[in-house]
Amino acid sequence: MKSRHWWERDDLCYVDGRLTFAGHDVCALAEKTVGPLYLYSSDRIVANLQRLTRALEQTGGDHQIYYAMKANRFEPLLTMIARTGLCGVDICSPDELDRALASGFAPAQISFTGTGVSNADLDRLLQHPDIHINCDTIGMIRRIGERRPNSAIGIRVNPAMGTGYDESEKLTYSGNGTTKFGIYREQWNEALAMAREYGLTVDTLHFHVGCGYLSGQLDQWERAVEACALFLKDLPDVRAVNIGGGLGLPHRVEDDLLDLGRWADILARHIGSKSPYAGLTIAVEPGDFIVKDAGMLILSVCDVEMKRDTLFAYVNGGFNLAPEPAFYDLPCEPVVCILPADNDPLVPVTIAGNINEALDIWAKDHPMPKLAEGDYIAFINAGGYASSMASNHCMRGQATERLL
Amino acid sequence: MKSRHWWERDDLCYVDGRLTFAGHDVCALAEKTVGPLYLYSSDRIVANLQRLTRALEQTGGDHQIYYAMKANRFEPLLTMIARTGLCGVDICSPDELDRALASGFAPAQISFTGTGVSNADLDRLLQHPDIHINCDTIGMIRRIGERRPNSAIGIRVNPAMGTGYDESEKLTYSGNGTTKFGIYREQWNEALAMAREYGLTVDTLHFHVGCGYLSGQLDQWERAVEACALFLKDLPDVRAVNIGGGLGLPHRVEDDLLDLGRWADILARHIGSKSPYAGLTIAVEPGDFIVKDAGMLILSVCDVEMKRDTLFAYVNGGFNLAPEPAFYDLPCEPVVCILPADNDPLVPVTIAGNINEALDIWAKDHPMPKLAEGDYIAFINAGGYASSMASNHCMRGQATERLL
Repeated sequence: MKSRHWWERDDLCYVDGRLTFAGHDVCALAEKTVGPLYLYSSDRIVANLQRLTRALEQTGGDHQIYYAMKANRFEPLLTMIARTGLCGVDICSPDELDRALASGFAPAQISFTGTGVSNADLDRLLQHPDIHINCDTIGMIRRIGERRPNSAIGIRVNPAMGTGYDESEKLTYSGNGTTKFGIYREQWNEALAMAREYGLTVDTLHFHVGCGYLSGQLDQWERAVEACALFLKDLPDVRAVNIGGGLGLPHRVEDDLLDLGRWADILARHIGSKSPYAGLTIAVEPGDFIVKDAGMLILSVCDVEMKRDTLFAYVNGGFNLAPEPAFYDLPCEPVVCILPADNDPLVPVTIAGNINEALDIWAKDHPMPKLAEGDYIAFINAGGYASSMASNHCMRGQATERLL
Repeated sequence: MKSRHWWERDDLCYVDGRLTFAGHDVCALAEKTVGPLYLYSSDRIVANLQRLTRALEQTGGDHQIYYAMKANRFEPLLTMIARTGLCGVDICSPDELDRALASGFAPAQISFTGTGVSNADLDRLLQHPDIHINCDTIGMIRRIGERRPNSAIGIRVNPAMGTGYDESEKLTYSGNGTTKFGIYREQWNEALAMAREYGLTVDTLHFHVGCGYLSGQLDQWERAVEACALFLKDLPDVRAVNIGGGLGLPHRVEDDLLDLGRWADILARHIGSKSPYAGLTIAVEPGDFIVKDAGMLILSVCDVEMKRDTLFAYVNGGFNLAPEPAFYDLPCEPVVCILPADNDPLVPVTIAGNINEALDIWAKDHPMPKLAEGDYIAFINAGGYASSMASNHCMRGQATERLL
């Protein structure tokens, strides 16, 4: 028996040398499928929701999870989540609204936080008066006011500071550079005046100040939360603070876990029971945190060979099926489905996808056991922002999704 | 009348202040459509094919264009291209094969150059004995040999040098770092031995040594072509050299045009009539060069407002409809569809898409006339690698494609 890998846990581990996920033998499932296969675990999703619920309970007040369906909108998965009763759903487009409703979420369980919201979008959203809408621009406040004056809205603010899994601009939602999201302090009074002009009540303060943050980013995240809480004093009718999503999970051996206890304590002190704003509902919009480690993508090896000085393993799926490794430097760790019987040494392998682009590399010089044609590789942490962002580039988009 | 912009040409220009494309008023077409609209010009595609054909004629020998359908596989566009008789088609997956056949290309007009090619892929491809297959790995040579010994194949080689629109690794297909593409010199003898073992005749040498190269990269491209030509002396049965694609076009005001005369002369000297290999067919696999400047994406403005110090214009479509600006730093220049009547000064505008990701920015601080809600913006150079790479991320993938 080999030592456990960093990503192993009770429901995702080797049993007698075979990768087991949610009680299923991964190889056996892959062998029954033609082509790429996404697997999702219902139990893990429920466990993640429960873990987050317990953390929210520590904030000492009312709380609400809205699952961000942009992370994964596979219909059986959405329906399963709706049935748990553990959360509502966060949407960002009218088509997502339709899918949320079809999956069994009630309008009052639906929160909309979008950007670039057109009048056509608003006309579809406002057909359902019970969904919560967070406004990202002053123009959106006005256009809602024109269509539905004297109603309640949320406003997304931007504290001009934030944090995330790295400091790259790509995933910076609020920070030194001006981003497209939310109302900045400089335009805050204008936004409030616009709401007043149409008799709109601001019942929710929304912010999203990080993406993929872990414990190491919590100090910085706290400062951003603190900055956002300052907007609350101008909102006499506020009932909820929606803190967005962005809760991270480890992608690499060196990543730490997000300390949910510290996270909850930050919320309690700044907007929860230990703050001047005790009594507000704390809402959160996690996507990855709920589904990412509850999913994997299984591909099979087509060729294994040296090119110049590099050992390549080619697999039957590319970055179009899971764009984060290629475009966001967020790896889906490749994991063999059957451990070698003996103590074969690991060798560095570059795993290449089947898209005709140089960037279509799953992993570079990654330590792997000896691979052979026909072997299955599971790319873990492919439960979020994989199939939901997939394309048919090179007409290589065919894949099967399966909820366990 | 304003002075012409860098991108204007006879079939894409302002007429009486209104953007005209392929003889159509762009605004009028957009107004007839709900949501994002891609427009493609048949005439421009034909003109690009003819321009390239004339250049190939200067190489002094036989030549063949295979249009790389991964750039744009919109069915009416493919069917139109097939009917011109000016080219065959380059494919990289079995589904692309099916679409090529359905669009009217004969098997003998189809060239396959793929990577990560599975046995399932090969079994589908080999049902059509007349398509040309270029092998990317030694394993692929063997697996074709096992299935169809004593037949003809092409081999893709990698000269370990290349060029492209930038020096970033993302679009480097051959260069200092070892890429997944082609057979390197170090494994060349092994590849030839594998072909001999199965009685396979190597009738085509394939390489692809640049992406988006313009005149400024031609010197470097020439050295790569020269290095590839060295492989020819080991191929007694070779009849064609496929030089891949990668011919670039300007994306920004500062980009130069690709000098096709110089390009043809390089080919003539190294593999054409002025070379020791006179008599070979020169094949080329352009994608962008044929379709990119023959297409645009039209979006409408939802909101225009200041955020902190930045003027944002939000539009009703995001990077999921055209990933190159966000992910490859290849802009689709935003162009207003109606010029302002007077000499309004240009102001810097950041154009933001409607996807909930910070990277979903079409252009930063781009000089534009004053914009207002409802204005249409045409993003030019969206004819290639836009809709073909599009996703339904955030369920914002709905769009209309139209061939003019």
